[in-house]
Amino acid sequence: MALIVQKFGGTSVANADRIRNVARIITDTYKAGNQVVAVLSAQGDTTDDLIEKAAEINPNASKREMDMLLSTGEQISCSLCAMAIEGLGYPAISLTGWQAGMKTNSTYSNARIKRVECERIRNELDRHSIVIVTGFQGINKYDDITTLGRGGSDTSAVALAAGLHADLCQIYTDVDGIYTADPRFVRGARKLEEITFDEMLELASLGAQVLHNRSVEMAKRYNVNLEVISSFSGNPGTKVKEVVKNVEKSHISGVAKDKNIARLALVGLKDEPGIAFKIFSLLARNKINVDIILQSIGRNESKDISFTVGKPDLEEAKRLLEENKEWLSFDHVDVSDRIAKVSIVGAGMMNTPGTAARMFEALFNAGINIHMISTSEIKVSVLVPAEDADRAVQVIHDQFFDEFNS
Amino acid sequence: MALIVQKFGGTSVANADRIRNVARIITDTYKAGNQVVAVLSAQGDTTDDLIEKAAEINPNASKREMDMLLSTGEQISCSLCAMAIEGLGYPAISLTGWQAGMKTNSTYSNARIKRVECERIRNELDRHSIVIVTGFQGINKYDDITTLGRGGSDTSAVALAAGLHADLCQIYTDVDGIYTADPRFVRGARKLEEITFDEMLELASLGAQVLHNRSVEMAKRYNVNLEVISSFSGNPGTKVKEVVKNVEKSHISGVAKDKNIARLALVGLKDEPGIAFKIFSLLARNKINVDIILQSIGRNESKDISFTVGKPDLEEAKRLLEENKEWLSFDHVDVSDRIAKVSIVGAGMMNTPGTAARMFEALFNAGINIHMISTSEIKVSVLVPAEDADRAVQVIHDQFFDEFNS
Repeated sequence: MALIVQKFGGTSVANADRIRNVARIITDTYKAGNQVVAVLSAQGDTTDDLIEKAAEINPNASKREMDMLLSTGEQISCSLCAMAIEGLGYPAISLTGWQAGMKTNSTYSNARIKRVECERIRNELDRHSIVIVTGFQGINKYDDITTLGRGGSDTSAVALAAGLHADLCQIYTDVDGIYTADPRFVRGARKLEEITFDEMLELASLGAQVLHNRSVEMAKRYNVNLEVISSFSGNPGTKVKEVVKNVEKSHISGVAKDKNIARLALVGLKDEPGIAFKIFSLLARNKINVDIILQSIGRNESKDISFTVGKPDLEEAKRLLEENKEWLSFDHVDVSDRIAKVSIVGAGMMNTPGTAARMFEALFNAGINIHMISTSEIKVSVLVPAEDADRAVQVIHDQFFDEFNS
Repeated sequence: MALIVQKFGGTSVANADRIRNVARIITDTYKAGNQVVAVLSAQGDTTDDLIEKAAEINPNASKREMDMLLSTGEQISCSLCAMAIEGLGYPAISLTGWQAGMKTNSTYSNARIKRVECERIRNELDRHSIVIVTGFQGINKYDDITTLGRGGSDTSAVALAAGLHADLCQIYTDVDGIYTADPRFVRGARKLEEITFDEMLELASLGAQVLHNRSVEMAKRYNVNLEVISSFSGNPGTKVKEVVKNVEKSHISGVAKDKNIARLALVGLKDEPGIAFKIFSLLARNKINVDIILQSIGRNESKDISFTVGKPDLEEAKRLLEENKEWLSFDHVDVSDRIAKVSIVGAGMMNTPGTAARMFEALFNAGINIHMISTSEIKVSVLVPAEDADRAVQVIHDQFFDEFNS
């Protein structure tokens, strides 16, 4: 008998039929002799509808009250799912975040899980109940309801799997698993059987939004066996693990692109110690996340520093830098938002020389110009013109995954 | 500084405009130097919509899960109201039933409040917050969410007023107060300035559905000052108290009718001790509430017993009696559902001889036949043909409240 945590997103519980479908997946798992804890998001557009209701009343509502409001969404989907399971003739009980012991800090609307007190869930499992837990929410030390922010339900599921020492945490979604590239755009994109946590983290941060990074980081920390799987197809999904056993033919696991970025360059900086610290602590104090950083080699006592930020942060970052022009001492800020980041990710890359070179070769053959390059142990990212991004992903994917090439 | 509990029903919070209106009433009370605890129902049709959602999934859903589902309705209206108050520039905090310490028994969907643990509310009041509490719901000893059943939000408000020793409990509704008869149907119906708990109880049980009996009973038990008042008109409402100070001109406070009843008569019962006990304990065991009971004087060793039940219980009551015909030993069951109960209520009645006679006189003058009569210290009820009910209310009201007569 295994203990399995299953998470279902908003699309998977969007209406009565889909809730019945989820109930069937859960009861099939239960009938096979497993204990099941299911974590559900709010139905389809519920959260957006509630946000709209709040905006009509007070566009600047406190986050504490927003969390009170939004947490009802999962309470609705979970009670309905428990009813659907009862309808199939199996014992089920729905629990809110506070009933399930999800203790968080007090950062309303973006709370972090501090610990999971699993007594109640364990008691219900001992009574042979299927337990349905609201994702995305918890309770703080004041007994107030909190929500976890984006990707919160994935994080709830992983936290419960860790707290309960579950054998498996299945993230049911509307895609079949993790692909070597986005199958909607890239010919020949293949589903991966397995992927490592680190690869998954790189892929997620590169714009492949299947699992939220917070949940993957938590799964890695507590060594939770994750699986990404479709709630519609019934096909096997992709396993996310610390170490991948079956080394696949290719030593990279995916190609990803991110168009939602912009580049800033500080040109003509005085070449003196501490300048990078000044720039990036200024941005960090203002909550601007910086991704790729490139610093040119100094010459003639001046240098350039380029970096990328999320597109929504571009104007604010530019304003901040220009306001501090005297203090930072540079010539001018150069900005571009017509760029995209294209990356390859693979734990196998470390031991395979020439991977980056093969990527650059594919781009060269396709006549695509590279603006910036950044590498880590398991990834290579390049900045290319935005209009070339889709073609870049395709030619890189062809280079590594085409039968003919690989 | 007074502590005032204000309750707003579903109609009063049905949309954004009405929630803003409620926020204004609450903040006006707060600005006048009072502490305010507001108790809210779910918005308009929310509860019905949720019930429909559940029925689509499982028409026989467990009551535990139904309560989990339905309790979200008040959580939504309360958080929205807190946001509206924040928008007006006043401090507000919404609390669910469990956060507000509403401890109930475990009868899901019809739970009773066992006690209110007011620490959290008191702390928030001490911080000068306006406290918005979800009506209709609480928490049982298993930490599961319960709902209180019909009229639950009124009961929540009165329980909080009792627990907090509030100076006043105002029930805001869509009517102006308690009237001498239903103003939609009866010419000359007048609003009462004051009414006693007992009169209110009789009126409510007689079909004047302004306040639910459970809330009035609780208000009487804990001597909570109640006021029924409109959330739309701004007019003064009706005060409900133990003793009414201003004795009004008339010694009755209202005329009510109830068409939702039916009469059963057991004809030819053997005249032996214990027969009434047998009949009514049989019905009670089967959860059938009996209202008026009349027993004819026995003669020839046989007698008749007539009684009224709610119309929805008629078939079940008839079936039960006929199944037990041998054991109860009667001749036949006679049934009528084309009747209505018309009643006058008034604490002043006890000390005013001839009140019942004046009522009968009015009916006689109007040519309305009386089927059954039942009296208590503060009320007189008669059964009349259903088609005469509206006219009966009018002529009785004219008899007691017309300037010319009274």
